[in-house]
Amino acid sequence: MMRTAVVPGSFDPVTLGHLDVITRSAKIFDRVIVAVLHNQQKKPLFSVEERMSLIKESTNTLLNVEVASFNGLLMDFVCEHKASVIIKGLRTVTDFEYEQQMATVNRHLNENIDTFFIMTNSDYAHLSSSIVKEVARYKADLKSMVSLPVEQALKEKFN
Amino acid sequence: MMRTAVVPGSFDPVTLGHLDVITRSAKIFDRVIVAVLHNQQKKPLFSVEERMSLIKESTNTLLNVEVASFNGLLMDFVCEHKASVIIKGLRTVTDFEYEQQMATVNRHLNENIDTFFIMTNSDYAHLSSSIVKEVARYKADLKSMVSLPVEQALKEKFN
Amino acid sequence: MMRTAVVPGSFDPVTLGHLDVITRSAKIFDRVIVAVLHNQQKKPLFSVEERMSLIKESTNTLLNVEVASFNGLLMDFVCEHKASVIIKGLRTVTDFEYEQQMATVNRHLNENIDTFFIMTNSDYAHLSSSIVKEVARYKADLKSMVSLPVEQALKEKFN
Amino acid sequence: MMRTAVVPGSFDPVTLGHLDVITRSAKIFDRVIVAVLHNQQKKPLFSVEERMSLIKESTNTLLNVEVASFNGLLMDFVCEHKASVIIKGLRTVTDFEYEQQMATVNRHLNENIDTFFIMTNSDYAHLSSSIVKEVARYKADLKSMVSLPVEQALKEKFN
Amino acid sequence: MMRTAVVPGSFDPVTLGHLDVITRSAKIFDRVIVAVLHNQQKKPLFSVEERMSLIKESTNTLLNVEVASFNGLLMDFVCEHKASVIIKGLRTVTDFEYEQQMATVNRHLNENIDTFFIMTNSDYAHLSSSIVKEVARYKADLKSMVSLPVEQALKEKFN
Amino acid sequence: MMRTAVVPGSFDPVTLGHLDVITRSAKIFDRVIVAVLHNQQKKPLFSVEERMSLIKESTNTLLNVEVASFNGLLMDFVCEHKASVIIKGLRTVTDFEYEQQMATVNRHLNENIDTFFIMTNSDYAHLSSSIVKEVARYKADLKSMVSLPVEQALKEKFN
Repeated sequence: MMRTAVVPGSFDPVTLGHLDVITRSAKIFDRVIVAVLHNQQKKPLFSVEERMSLIKESTNTLLNVEVASFNGLLMDFVCEHKASVIIKGLRTVTDFEYEQQMATVNRHLNENIDTFFIMTNSDYAHLSSSIVKEVARYKADLKSMVSLPVEQALKEKFN
Repeated sequence: MMRTAVVPGSFDPVTLGHLDVITRSAKIFDRVIVAVLHNQQKKPLFSVEERMSLIKESTNTLLNVEVASFNGLLMDFVCEHKASVIIKGLRTVTDFEYEQQMATVNRHLNENIDTFFIMTNSDYAHLSSSIVKEVARYKADLKSMVSLPVEQALKEKFN
Repeated sequence: MMRTAVVPGSFDPVTLGHLDVITRSAKIFDRVIVAVLHNQQKKPLFSVEERMSLIKESTNTLLNVEVASFNGLLMDFVCEHKASVIIKGLRTVTDFEYEQQMATVNRHLNENIDTFFIMTNSDYAHLSSSIVKEVARYKADLKSMVSLPVEQALKEKFN
Repeated sequence: MMRTAVVPGSFDPVTLGHLDVITRSAKIFDRVIVAVLHNQQKKPLFSVEERMSLIKESTNTLLNVEVASFNGLLMDFVCEHKASVIIKGLRTVTDFEYEQQMATVNRHLNENIDTFFIMTNSDYAHLSSSIVKEVARYKADLKSMVSLPVEQALKEKFN
Repeated sequence: MMRTAVVPGSFDPVTLGHLDVITRSAKIFDRVIVAVLHNQQKKPLFSVEERMSLIKESTNTLLNVEVASFNGLLMDFVCEHKASVIIKGLRTVTDFEYEQQMATVNRHLNENIDTFFIMTNSDYAHLSSSIVKEVARYKADLKSMVSLPVEQALKEKFN
Repeated sequence: MMRTAVVPGSFDPVTLGHLDVITRSAKIFDRVIVAVLHNQQKKPLFSVEERMSLIKESTNTLLNVEVASFNGLLMDFVCEHKASVIIKGLRTVTDFEYEQQMATVNRHLNENIDTFFIMTNSDYAHLSSSIVKEVARYKADLKSMVSLPVEQALKEKFN
């Protein structure tokens, strides 16, 4: 039986914390789809296309990882792609409580699909896309926070 | 590739919350081993043999679930059984913080084995083995808390 | 002695979680006033009048429940209506911390009025008005989340 | 309709934080019963009789407050005394999570009885019976922590 | 060796909680610089100049306290002023988790500068600049929340 | 002005997390006293003398660090040693809430002495003395958890 997992997020941009979750999921599941949320109500720094392409460049050694985008309900995306599980990283108590609510809502919407959580590696637990953008805005060192392609893209945005 | 998951715990006794985690793990992984901790420093209500047998009776319709016991380091048990992942249920913030620490320790001990978490179904998030024993002690109704074999065993213990 | 309780909120729209808190308050207090916040700085989905009318339709079997709106300080509303207690539902740790601060501020403003909290029924702990709106936006099933009049109103808004 | 509330606890000994919860409950409910838990598995500093008598001395100006003890299931005590509500104080997130679980268990046992929570006054949020005993053990000042009769009783115990 | 500490924040406006942190820092460190964040993306109620001048008026008896503003990376400000430590107040679990992330980020940026935390005095733990503004908007009493100059300035803003 | 800080704890045994807090305190304060709690009610793995000597061996390059023991109230120890501040490490939300209560109690006992907190380095946030003992019991690798003298001492205890 082939098992597909979906790793959803905004990824504006993808951080080393996100990549850690994607890499560890790719070891356990046959196929991993990184699903980039196209939220029309927020103004992202990077377009959906840029965000997808930065994830592709940062995961190009992981052969069972694909990148896609979605703008409706996550559960519809998961069903269309015949995935059986959603994977989310957990960093903080605030994450935990929000994800606990979302997991319950998603189970109400479709009880055949389950959400599994991974504790973010403690080296990256302090990272978030917004902290990374804040650090980039002031031209401080990003090496321990993002992959090389993302570092490059952030430098271009803030110059 | 066959994937084995280990669901560790004290299970003194197994609750409907534990069974929910085991059932959902059995849908995602090829083989699930429920690993009963044999902690010589604590005095359990049920012996390891009783706890194992109550889990077996409560999961006998799940064909890919096995029950075993361990009394050393969880990581050694996981390696011996060629499992690739540990599954834990998360109910509360206190659970979350403890499990976050243990996941980091376990990753230090063996970085090839990862811990995945499931949010306990909200119907069972208030349950724990100690609450179940407290309720049983005063002969209140246990139907929404444990399986039938466990209900029976608790009644016998407290009579 | 007649005792009046105020249940304040934005109710944009009222969920089954809110209705659970209102129903349980109506069993304990002689008179319950649901106080709809008219916050001029936020853009709600439903107008104050629509929100009030959805609450009235959803609580019409509870004879001691009234619905009103306020746009100043909650404490002034409570005093004007000769209420002795404010009732709030608690779902998460984040709720808890925010409400702990507000209860202290309100006690500073008027120490004769106290805030009582109810733990939201675990069937509804994952619900919030914003989750309900998100689910409605994508036309997923709302039956386990809101009352019939609210389900109807949400469908009309998103068509 | 006469409304009775039960305020349960170990009260070993009663602190100013507990007395704050009792006093505020006595303003809202017609009759308040302070229910002292007689837990045979723990070794308290004060006997049930001593704990009851210290609560009586500390609440003797509150005419609608009674003191009793129980050693079975709280819900049985509440029913026997025809009370309609349980009142608990909340100080910390840890309190909150534990009480959220207990409120759900109690609702399963008897859905006609509800638990209401009060945020402990911030002047007393740091207090617990065990902190009070620790401070008394080293003969430090107890004036801002307990009532006069309790201060006296603690001094006698530790001399 | 002279030791300089930086107390950063938005201070829109400074509350008695902030002043408590500043006063306690001034007892331990030789020189304390209150650093007012000039965030161009937010619309504050008070301008940077007004905020600085309200802090100066409220701390004029503390001889080792200075007030400055910054609009870049906090670490750059700290280095330029040859400070060795950043001081932050902690009120809630949400504060704690956010500050834990920021402390890790700042340590990555400059490991010679450390962040120390003070628990906000429980008398002020419920205060925040936004709660103070909300209370001022409805002309309720501010005496237990802000210093006299800030009370005066808030009254002028809302008239 | 010479400033003395006290770092209290059980240190049974000292971990790399504790040593991180001690080292960072020694950079900011003129003199740091590590105060080992001699709690007669708990059975430690190492005696007070062993614990003190393991701390001394692990901090022998830090010239302004001393080690002492205490078995009364921490505040009395702090006063006797003319210290002005207590330093505690914070790892988790549970730590935070406990320390918030203790800081308030200590401020009541002596308002001239303040408690400062440091966020434990994320590399060590998962460590505690009890986790270290658990790992040592099963003879797993301790290198990333404790100093060399402590590793040696643990091996001897468990052989």
